[in-house]
Amino acid sequence: MTIQRTWPHPDIQADLAALRHQAPLIHCLTNIVASGFTANVLLAIGASPAMVIAKQEAGEFAAMAAGLLINVGTVTSATARAMERAAAAAADAATPWVLDPVAVGALAWRRRIATDLLAHRPTVIRGNGSEILTLAGAEGSGKGVDSTATSTASLSAARALASRTGAVVALSGVIDYVTDGAEVIEVAGGDPMMTRVTGVGCALGAVIAAFLGAGCPPLRAATAASAVFAGAGERAAARARGPGSFAVAFIDELSLIGSEPDGN
Amino acid sequence: MTIQRTWPHPDIQADLAALRHQAPLIHCLTNIVASGFTANVLLAIGASPAMVIAKQEAGEFAAMAAGLLINVGTVTSATARAMERAAAAAADAATPWVLDPVAVGALAWRRRIATDLLAHRPTVIRGNGSEILTLAGAEGSGKGVDSTATSTASLSAARALASRTGAVVALSGVIDYVTDGAEVIEVAGGDPMMTRVTGVGCALGAVIAAFLGAGCPPLRAATAASAVFAGAGERAAARARGPGSFAVAFIDELSLIGSEPDGN
Amino acid sequence: MTIQRTWPHPDIQADLAALRHQAPLIHCLTNIVASGFTANVLLAIGASPAMVIAKQEAGEFAAMAAGLLINVGTVTSATARAMERAAAAAADAATPWVLDPVAVGALAWRRRIATDLLAHRPTVIRGNGSEILTLAGAEGSGKGVDSTATSTASLSAARALASRTGAVVALSGVIDYVTDGAEVIEVAGGDPMMTRVTGVGCALGAVIAAFLGAGCPPLRAATAASAVFAGAGERAAARARGPGSFAVAFIDELSLIGSEPDGN
Repeated sequence: MTIQRTWPHPDIQADLAALRHQAPLIHCLTNIVASGFTANVLLAIGASPAMVIAKQEAGEFAAMAAGLLINVGTVTSATARAMERAAAAAADAATPWVLDPVAVGALAWRRRIATDLLAHRPTVIRGNGSEILTLAGAEGSGKGVDSTATSTASLSAARALASRTGAVVALSGVIDYVTDGAEVIEVAGGDPMMTRVTGVGCALGAVIAAFLGAGCPPLRAATAASAVFAGAGERAAARARGPGSFAVAFIDELSLIGSEPDGN
Repeated sequence: MTIQRTWPHPDIQADLAALRHQAPLIHCLTNIVASGFTANVLLAIGASPAMVIAKQEAGEFAAMAAGLLINVGTVTSATARAMERAAAAAADAATPWVLDPVAVGALAWRRRIATDLLAHRPTVIRGNGSEILTLAGAEGSGKGVDSTATSTASLSAARALASRTGAVVALSGVIDYVTDGAEVIEVAGGDPMMTRVTGVGCALGAVIAAFLGAGCPPLRAATAASAVFAGAGERAAARARGPGSFAVAFIDELSLIGSEPDGN
Repeated sequence: MTIQRTWPHPDIQADLAALRHQAPLIHCLTNIVASGFTANVLLAIGASPAMVIAKQEAGEFAAMAAGLLINVGTVTSATARAMERAAAAAADAATPWVLDPVAVGALAWRRRIATDLLAHRPTVIRGNGSEILTLAGAEGSGKGVDSTATSTASLSAARALASRTGAVVALSGVIDYVTDGAEVIEVAGGDPMMTRVTGVGCALGAVIAAFLGAGCPPLRAATAASAVFAGAGERAAARARGPGSFAVAFIDELSLIGSEPDGN
């Protein structure tokens, strides 16, 4: 059964209001390319970001955070250990956490790292088609960090991965899908410009963690984050000359969405 | 005794003109989130930024720089060693330096790193209330990187820390305070939007280092940086739709402030 | 013999169209300050960026990429090993690659790293006057990352370095020069604002790699990248209030240049 959700569905409005009210502390172990943009996206949406990356601190901090993002985009030996400790601590402390397996389709070393992290039971796994296909056990087809598998074709892999791991899977593409293995939610919208700014997908993983940190159930958190991104992306595209002004407008729109007098 | 200072006080105008004339080389050992923004802020204000982070180079470079910033936001084992060497070399070479003890209130490992760095006698310590309270020996109350202690309540801790270490302490909050333990300077102004862009506080530490590098005495350097930030922040907020456009306008205003025909 | 090239020379238009058609995958081992901006520049111009920095992956990924950038701006022990492996793999796999020897004029440790990388025969070396003078064996005169040697005065060093290494040398300055030791191409234009945004030079190295990855011969690739940057920089400066809005407009213009109805 597939249902559609787009902004401004009342559930999503309610979840965004809850996020802003709580301003959850979100611990991010993410890549060096997207760190600044991700922090700004979290601040714009109303969360409180903190990047704590040392292996000596990552576990302690994951336990005190409201939500955790682990993104393997620029993983190294040093950060892999921090990720392992953060994921383990999150699982112990019941901190909800999001795994973003960037480019696991292309590179065997990080495929192993991401697969090992699954043992700590991520709450949500967010990726593009080739990343989800790879984690689900299919043959990777990733060309770098971009997906060459359409998200529609990857949907059955997403459902299988969700069923096997117990995580909700958020599959990004022209249309986003969110699934727990049984239910499938389709989130349409957004704008192609979102693929021309670095870190938009990475920041989506962080915002899913923020909705989780505000207490949303996983299916609903991933749906809300995807729908808010799609809505803000459409509004930003309408104001942009190119990807530079789009990125700026996207941050603005994330801070404004849901704050209008009619609540959307 | 507390005095007020805001842009465009003549002393601050003079110090900014001196900074622009000298374009001091500022060595930054800062976090991965704020690196790009910090470099752009330094360029906008008229300084010359350089991020040199290897332990093999940090000491050598700190000795040749006009000013140094050490910010522990994403400190790791590797960068902690580089920070130690840079601080030691700065102390030896009489390079003025700024310590930004990000989130020491929340995390014990970096609290030790920051405390150890005090032995190299930072020229200025910049932090929010909970960070300054922690370094001053009070119990930390930090929730991640944001302060939960009001800056007013932290002022006595700032004075005590300044007296004990010999550093000027710049306490950031709704109102900024700068103190050498005896004198207290209050810098009002700015805009709440400044807390919704990542790295603004981190960049302030770098700009304090830039004023130091241009030859300003510590109390005056921290005051000038805070006042220029507040002034540029107000101007940028007047042009912004949200935090995305605010960040862009803030960089623009930092480059424009003080360049008007009347000098402000 | 020196010839001039500026946008919109037909060769450059053709090369840019080829780049956009192929969307080459560009592997970047670059500094933490410029990573986000570099990725956005590559996306804007039409390439596909990927930052893969672990020593376990850098070689494998360099072999599958269409082009590689190695920039030593924030090199550490860990990333130096990744760079070594990436350069070796690129040489083996005939992946064209660009070396950006940031600040080798100022720091001996990275001078050795950059010099060792020359053994893997970079396709293009991009730097400012003091960096090129240093690599060419002259005495470095670098103050941090900015050049204190004029690019004109460094031109003979660039020719000598090109002749000795077999690389094309792209010498950045008020006027850019591209040389293979014999031929010299002069690319005028651009705007002083380009020196007031961090990472513009670093991103130029990445865009040279993108033109190489699209199949352009080295002299032509470095020329096209420099000319497109100069053209986009002029257009962006016409729209900017300061360096903040310039950086945004520069990304926009990189995405728009060459897409007008008349092809420029």
